Amino acid sequence: MSFERGKMIYEGKAKRIYEVVGHDDQVWVEFKDSLTAFNAQKKGSFSGKGRINAEISVLIFAQLSRHGVPTHLLKVLSPSEMLCQKIKIIPLEVVVRNRLAGSTAKKFGLSEGTALSAPLVEFFYKDDALGDPFVSDEQALMLKVVSRREDLDELRKFALLVNRHLHLLFAEVGIELVDFKIELGRNPQNELVLADEISPDCCRLWDMKSGEKMDKDRFRRDLGGVEENYREILMRLEQRWGGK
Amino acid sequence: MSFERGKMIYEGKAKRIYEVVGHDDQVWVEFKDSLTAFNAQKKGSFSGKGRINAEISVLIFAQLSRHGVPTHLLKVLSPSEMLCQKIKIIPLEVVVRNRLAGSTAKKFGLSEGTALSAPLVEFFYKDDALGDPFVSDEQALMLKVVSRREDLDELRKFALLVNRHLHLLFAEVGIELVDFKIELGRNPQNELVLADEISPDCCRLWDMKSGEKMDKDRFRRDLGGVEENYREILMRLEQRWGGK
Repeated sequence: MSFERGKMIYEGKAKRIYEVVGHDDQVWVEFKDSLTAFNAQKKGSFSGKGRINAEISVLIFAQLSRHGVPTHLLKVLSPSEMLCQKIKIIPLEVVVRNRLAGSTAKKFGLSEGTALSAPLVEFFYKDDALGDPFVSDEQALMLKVVSRREDLDELRKFALLVNRHLHLLFAEVGIELVDFKIELGRNPQNELVLADEISPDCCRLWDMKSGEKMDKDRFRRDLGGVEENYREILMRLEQRWGGK
Repeated sequence: MSFERGKMIYEGKAKRIYEVVGHDDQVWVEFKDSLTAFNAQKKGSFSGKGRINAEISVLIFAQLSRHGVPTHLLKVLSPSEMLCQKIKIIPLEVVVRNRLAGSTAKKFGLSEGTALSAPLVEFFYKDDALGDPFVSDEQALMLKVVSRREDLDELRKFALLVNRHLHLLFAEVGIELVDFKIELGRNPQNELVLADEISPDCCRLWDMKSGEKMDKDRFRRDLGGVEENYREILMRLEQRWGGK
């Protein structure tokens, strides 16, 4: 079965989303080579970055799917393009932290890497103009991003399940999962589905042996070696999971 | 019975706290004339401000107490000094909003005065050096400011009860309670007790007829008439509740 790309519906910082001709329930996702940080105030790119993030996402989605976590991925169209279910995205960035790092460590005056006794789930309201503000459950309900408090509990449960699998998956290739951001949506059956991507753009990943950062913090903090580290993550995941 | 002021334990932005000689379970609270805003980056004062806020707090504490809300106030020592129970303060500022105003309205890109379908309770972690950051339940638990999730539900319930009484109390004198901040603590019997103060320093109060702001926003936003409005609030409360 072949698919035809329709008109562009949306262009974000790292992806373009298109319609799929004759398939109203599907979208065509193209990963871009651009890198942005601090709400797109810092911009960069490298050739092949879209492909690397798409391939990492595909490998991870496949493993999560194998463990019963529903994802929006339907089919790989090219190294940087995916066919995905069209789902209703919940306008929250769901963050899970196993250690504190970045702005949250700073917010509480704690050191980068502070271990947590339990994973911490946080919600940020997806609104670029407002800078994606951190919200409590009460605020999320006030903003009507979900209709019931139980929906937030369901999001938390889903995110913690993803964390459990993702943490192990990265640990098997010598990488510690410090934190990550996911986006979730509901399919026409009203089931929660993992959407967007899982890549070094939206995870903090530290090499277990050296402690080196392998993720977008290399770009955010001008540490150099962005491309090399992204490639290294893909290579390790491919060696371990590429055949399955 | 007379009381003797002991050594100063703490000096905050608007109050000094002293020991009470021979009474380990009590503190001597003195209200200062200073006014501060934006985490003390903006400073001011007017003569008699400490007395006005103390007298407003005493009137309000008496009414809340009459409705069964426990407060730390034991005795009025002078127009600007109170004898209070020594309690273990929970390091959270508990905010209740009936309308959105100030930084929270801005955070969500909503207009000053946006009505809420239900009062919104928010927690801010009391830490001047960190700028009292807004926290979710999960973050409050992570910071160990309380030990159990149920403690946060108890704080919310207490704050909403205070809101119900306070809202009516101000409405009876022609003032709309837009939002307020309280601090809570636990007495030796482990009961929740309302501490600190309730004054125009920590409430947003709008005149019901004119819509004019009567609270610290006059100072924050350089609207003038700070002293006149604080005095007007005290006068209205005294006329209505002064004899009781």
